[in-house]
Parts: sequence; structure tokens; C-alpha cells
Amino acid sequence: MILSQDELARALEAANAGLDTALERLDALLRIPSISTDPAHGADCRAAADWLAAELTALGFDASVRDTPGHAMVVAHDRAAAGPHVLFYGHYDVQPVDPIDLWATRPFEPEIVTAENGERRIVARGASDDKGQLMTFVEACRALRAVSGELPARITILLEGEEESGSPSLAGFLDAAADELRADIALVCDTDMWDRHTPAVTTMLRGLVGEEIVVTCADRDLHSGMYGSAARNPNHVLAGILASLHDKDGAVAIAGFYDDVAELPAEIAEMWAGLDFSAADFLAEVGLRIPAGERDRSVLQQITSRPTCEINGMTGGYTGDGFKTVIPARASAKVSCRLVADQDPQKIRDALRAHVRARIPEDCGVEFIEHGAAPAIAVPVDGSYLAAARQALTEEWNEPAVLVGSGGSIPVVGEFKRRLDMDTLLVGFAQADDNIHSPNEKYDVESFRKGIRSWIRILAAIAT
Amino acid sequence: MILSQDELARALEAANAGLDTALERLDALLRIPSISTDPAHGADCRAAADWLAAELTALGFDASVRDTPGHAMVVAHDRAAAGPHVLFYGHYDVQPVDPIDLWATRPFEPEIVTAENGERRIVARGASDDKGQLMTFVEACRALRAVSGELPARITILLEGEEESGSPSLAGFLDAAADELRADIALVCDTDMWDRHTPAVTTMLRGLVGEEIVVTCADRDLHSGMYGSAARNPNHVLAGILASLHDKDGAVAIAGFYDDVAELPAEIAEMWAGLDFSAADFLAEVGLRIPAGERDRSVLQQITSRPTCEINGMTGGYTGDGFKTVIPARASAKVSCRLVADQDPQKIRDALRAHVRARIPEDCGVEFIEHGAAPAIAVPVDGSYLAAARQALTEEWNEPAVLVGSGGSIPVVGEFKRRLDMDTLLVGFAQADDNIHSPNEKYDVESFRKGIRSWIRILAAIAT
Repeated sequence: MILSQDELARALEAANAGLDTALERLDALLRIPSISTDPAHGADCRAAADWLAAELTALGFDASVRDTPGHAMVVAHDRAAAGPHVLFYGHYDVQPVDPIDLWATRPFEPEIVTAENGERRIVARGASDDKGQLMTFVEACRALRAVSGELPARITILLEGEEESGSPSLAGFLDAAADELRADIALVCDTDMWDRHTPAVTTMLRGLVGEEIVVTCADRDLHSGMYGSAARNPNHVLAGILASLHDKDGAVAIAGFYDDVAELPAEIAEMWAGLDFSAADFLAEVGLRIPAGERDRSVLQQITSRPTCEINGMTGGYTGDGFKTVIPARASAKVSCRLVADQDPQKIRDALRAHVRARIPEDCGVEFIEHGAAPAIAVPVDGSYLAAARQALTEEWNEPAVLVGSGGSIPVVGEFKRRLDMDTLLVGFAQADDNIHSPNEKYDVESFRKGIRSWIRILAAIAT
Repeated sequence: MILSQDELARALEAANAGLDTALERLDALLRIPSISTDPAHGADCRAAADWLAAELTALGFDASVRDTPGHAMVVAHDRAAAGPHVLFYGHYDVQPVDPIDLWATRPFEPEIVTAENGERRIVARGASDDKGQLMTFVEACRALRAVSGELPARITILLEGEEESGSPSLAGFLDAAADELRADIALVCDTDMWDRHTPAVTTMLRGLVGEEIVVTCADRDLHSGMYGSAARNPNHVLAGILASLHDKDGAVAIAGFYDDVAELPAEIAEMWAGLDFSAADFLAEVGLRIPAGERDRSVLQQITSRPTCEINGMTGGYTGDGFKTVIPARASAKVSCRLVADQDPQKIRDALRAHVRARIPEDCGVEFIEHGAAPAIAVPVDGSYLAAARQALTEEWNEPAVLVGSGGSIPVVGEFKRRLDMDTLLVGFAQADDNIHSPNEKYDVESFRKGIRSWIRILAAIAT
């Protein structure tokens, strides 16, 4: 269905008028602590799925909660409209909240606070990633239906509950439900704007390899006064391995790591050179000054177009209050590599494991635990849907929408391509300071309001 | 009071006859989870002190629980006897029990199990360190009093509740109670036998410096997909620092660390060379084969007469189940150095801190938290009390008692010398496989029985 200019204007106005009640609905969703990686929150994940299915049913969708081997999916269809078929994807699960003592508010008791600059912010775990973002699309559907009684396109909504824990059930679910999910284009709302004023479509996404390394030495914990020095300490072994992952110039020192890494295409490099990006400001925002990555690459490249290797967690021995003079039997680290372009996740995992194994003393052991793998994604930049979305975003924000790369990984985009042969438009309204995955996560009320309005415009433009 | 040979024989027999009831008393003490380093167990520490004071009162001692700024001390006097004044020291606090899943039994529900070789063992946290050991002395007093109505020497018992957490209240308490605690000799039961058959008096004790290193980078937790590589990761910084603490030959690489380390005296080196010590067996016992310490030193030297530096704990980022792609704001490690001879704890702490500070990137920070300090101790080997104790031990075990060094640190020995000008005899009945500070801590019933009998003989010998 093609919207008239009057219908579009009234839908945009409905989004403004309904903002407070939309925020109340988001508040209700944010109160559900749907931490997917923590088995203790299994029932909460189910509650979030049920809440969303009920909301979408009330909005006129044919919505249901679908079981998977892990957390459930929510699938909702509106088959009424004659336009193109659009699949919207978001995820209702959230990251853990630790370290809890660094939160100024309770993570699952959302508060709307006004910042020094007058901006209003919704503060809660998931406010930005991804509950606030996914609700921009749901609320856009609400405004469109309120104005014209139906939606401008045939819409399917897919909401996942395992995005923050490696999406173990996603591939199987896409295969099983391929017929109802395959659409002309997928829309994903899980990315950032370029800055507060400049909308962005993300066309490059890095891949990810997650790996846990467990070093084992003695067959029991030992007293460091009795065994220290003579008995191999897995903390020492692991520290040595972790320290060896990078060279002194900030490059990853795993053999073969950069083998399949291509240089940035000239046209993208040119567009980025024209962007107003200050590495100093980017780091200063989080209290840093000196780039830590590859010395011969710009910070913008380091965070978007270059592969990385980061220690996301490490633990060994006694880490509670006080002191315990122990030599532990084991120590472990969680390491993730971000991949670009043609890097093969399995090849990188193998290279990482070989690097580690070569550094394990003869009488010690190592175990590896896989935590997900996804190759990098490049979205074609010449499609008509992309052109329509850029135009719609430019009109809403009064700034030309830019095409950017994202340092993060959104494995679903690759799965959509691979399993459903479907391209994806990545449009999001998050800001760099949203503290996603961190204490005090927030989403700007303006991101939420103009995000809703952006989707109204994008859906209208796609249906044209 | 000088015991007759008949009285001594009857006291030794009383120890045998009373073994089962002595084990019941030890069982009751082991059931109190007096973990001193964990604030949640404050009331349990108090309960252990109260239990001991009540037991000693029932035994005829003038016993009381004394408050300190931390956990209480138990002080008990028996002033009746005319002999020399002996101060016995032990500690009623125990180490934490984690990792709890590696225990075959519940740590505070003692069980007596029979090993494959027929040995009976008391399995519980504190069974060896130090509740089982301290009760050998208490039960020796009981047997002596049962036989002759009084003790052969004037005895004061001091039981501490903070030994496993750095003894923060000890020095002040010794100063305040110096007049009632100063004795002719101190006896401490917190050390090992040489092996199952060979009793030992420990005459060298290493010192200890405990230090916590906290590395801080960004002012918040970051998403590794958005900031990875560009933003400094404190896990990487800390791993590099920890890896730099040792060189490739196993020596500590902190500048000046070995400055004040003397070579082992020739006569001790000679005695040790004659001991039946197998480095291969020592390591094989805990599942290892290859010595990890200074390449040019024997394992026996590494664990007793050489200084060491061990990472007892390290943590940073997400360490729970699953995976979280975070770059944490901070990472930390607990490091302890064992000191020998003339090494100054403060000098070593300063050297460690300088080593760390030199490796902190310009825009990151580091904080240090002190966890105790004590210099190494050498007990004079020519005193009459030592001669009496060696003779008594040799008679009980039918093997010559040896003089050994201990890798562990028992700061009270230095404090006794410094504050009360008192030498200490370190006599213990623990075995190398007692798993102290580890899961499945145990104490051999034979260590307990013959430990009681050893103290009966030592007290009788000292009073002669």
C-alpha cells in the first residue's frame, strides 16, 4: 500500500503524540531481566517473549512464541498488505549486568533521567541493546496502523532471545521456518547512528570467533608456600599466553591472523576520510587518550575494518576479598576475535588454538570451549531498498545518511544471506555513549522518538 | 614438675585410650566454619573461639576470649606448675573452601575415611591447618593432667583467629598482653613432618609479601566490538605485567629481587643433601613432572630456601558462564612473594610496585592493596629446648628428628622474637599430602594420635 503524503504526516504526528505511552510499554519490557547467557534467567527470557507476542497480537499481528532448543523466538505476521515482504529482526535478550556496583540505578528498574545537556535518557539494561531499538519498529507499526488501518508492506517480525549468547538456535530455526521468514528484504535495528545528528546505514559488519581457554597444571590446588616456584602455576602460563597475543606495535601476533585481510576499498576509505571522526574525542569519551591498536592504522579502521583479538575475561586462583596463598589447578580466559572480509572463522580459531598449544608446558594441559563463530558481512551498497532507506533517514534527520562499517558482529545478517538468500538493511538509532554491555546502559528518548518516525518513513518509502 | 617414667608411660597410654573421644572433640571444632578472610563468617570465628575457651576452662585452664579489632584471641593459663613457662600458639581460623565442587565431602562436615593403604584420615577444612594440629597440644595437656593431676610446666595457650588472613591484630595484641604471654619458649604446631615416618623441627621459615594489583583503563566497561583494539584492555595490560614477573629460566625478573638473598649455609646444604628427597616424586604427587622454578636450583631449594613470586589470583572482565564481549574497566591480580634470610619485605614490595608501574600505559592507572608482610625467620639451632624436643620426637617416632626449612610463612614467629624476645620451636605433624588450603584437606589419625603423644614427651622433656 502506498501512503499518501497526508497519511505519512499523520503517522509521524501519531508517533509524537503517542510517545509517553510508547515509553510506558518500553518500560514494561525493560523490567523483565531477560539475560540469555545466565541459566538462572530462563523464565525471564520466556516472559519477555510472551510479553512481546501479546503486544504484537494486540497490534493485529498473527504472533506466536516458538520453542527452540534454547530460548524461544517470537514470530509475528501481518499478511494483509500487498506491498513487498519485509522481515524485521530484533532481539529481546540482554547482557548480564555485572559489575552491578557501578550502576547508578537498578538495571531492571528503568528510569528516565535528564542529562546536563537537557537530553532525556532511558536508563536500564537493554534500553538500547536491543529492547529500545526493536520497540522503535513495533511502535512505528502501531502509528501506521492507527492512521491508515493497515500497514504499507507485508511485515514479518522475528525476535530472538539468544543474540547475546551466540545465537545457538538461530540457524536451525531459520532453516525450519524458512518459508514463512523469507522476505524481499530484512531490516535489523541493532546498530548505531554516526553521531547524534547523522543517521547511518551499516553495510559492513565484522565477524566473531569466541573461544575459552582453560589451562590446567597440577591435579589440585596447591599451597604457594609449599609448592611455589617448583610447581607450574597456570596463572603464570595463561598470563604468558595472553601477553603473547599482541606484539609491541598493537598487532595481533597469532601466525596467519592477517593472511586473508584485504585493504579497505578506495571509495569507502574516501568516504570515511570525509567523516568528522576525532580519534581523540572517541577515546576521551571513555577516559582514554592513547590508541592501543595497530600503530599503523587509524582508530576508525581499528574499530571497524581491521580484525582484533581481545581478552574479554580471565580468572584463576583466589579472587574474592582478602588473600589466599594458593596455586590453582586451572586458570581460564575468554578471548574473542573480530573478523573482517574474507577471514574464515574456523581458520582463525585453529590459528588461535595452535598459538596457545605451542605455549603450554609439556606437563600441563589446555582445553578449549567454543563460544560462537560468524564471518564478516558486507551488505551490497547499490540496492533500491538501501536507496529508499537512505532517503527516508535523510528526510527525518535533515542530514544525509552515511554508509558505515560496524565493529560489532550481528551474526543473523550472515545467516539471512546464507539460509534465506536475503539481504539486510542495518538501520539503528543507538549512540556511541549508550553504554551497551556496560553499567548504566541508556537510550536517548530522541533516539526512540525519531527512531519510530524513521521506520515510519522507511516503511512508507519501501512500499512506494 | 618432673614426670617419672611411669607417669610419662601412663600419659602416653591415656592418649591412646582417649583417642576416640579426642576425635569427637576435634569433630565438633571442625564443624565451625571459621573462615577468617570472609566477613560473612565473623560469627563463626567467634563461635570457634568460644568453643576453645570453654574446652580449656573445662581442662582446668584460666581461659578467656579476648576481643581485638578483628577476630578474637583465646588466651588460657595454667600457672600451677613450677617448671619453665611455655607459650603454645595455634590458630583456629581456616582458609576459604572454594572451589567447593572439587570437594568429595562437605568441608565442614568432617568424615573419617580409610585410605587404600589402610590409613585413617580426618577429612575437613582445617583438619590439618590448624585445628587438628592445635588440638594435639590440647589433648596432650588433657592426658598429662589425667595422669598426674597437674601439668609438667607452666603453660600459656594463645589461639589466633586471623592467621589465614594476614594476622592484622596480632602485633597489637602481643604488645598489649606482653606481660602475660612472654615465656621461656614458644611452641607452634603448624608445620609438617619430613615424611610419614620422620619427625621434623622447622628452623627456617620464609617471609611473605602479599600484594593486590588493580589495573584501570577506560572509565567504564566497553563493548569489544565497538572499542576493541583502539581502547586499552586492562586484561592485556595485566597479562603483560604478570608474564613479565619471571624470566624464561624461571627466575623472578623484578629488579633487585635477589639482592639480599644469601646462599644456603654449608652445614644445612649438607644435611639436605643427605635427605631422601625426590623432586620427581614431589611433583608427581600433584600430577606434574617438570620443575617450573629457577633452572639452576634444586626443587628442595626452590620450595624452602629460595624466594619466589606467585600469582595467587587474577580476574578481569566476564568470568561467568557463557560469553560477554566486554572490555572491562579494570583487572586485578593477587601476587605473593616468599622471602628468605635478609630480604626486607618493604623493599621487595617497593620493587614489585616499581616493576608494575613501569609497565602501566600512560593513560591507564594502577592501585595497590597491601595484604600482609613478614620477614623470613631463622630459629637458633643450638638451644637446649630444641635439643630436648628433638630427643622427645626421636623417641616417639623411632626415627631421628630432622631440622628443616619451610616454604610457608608463619609471621607469629617473627613477632614473638621482635615483641616478646622469645624463640620458637616449630613442631608439627602435618603431611605434604594434607591438601591444606585446597579441597579435601585431611589430617592423618596417626598424625593426631602420635602428635598428642609427641607433645606429652616434649613437655616432659622440657620440664626436666
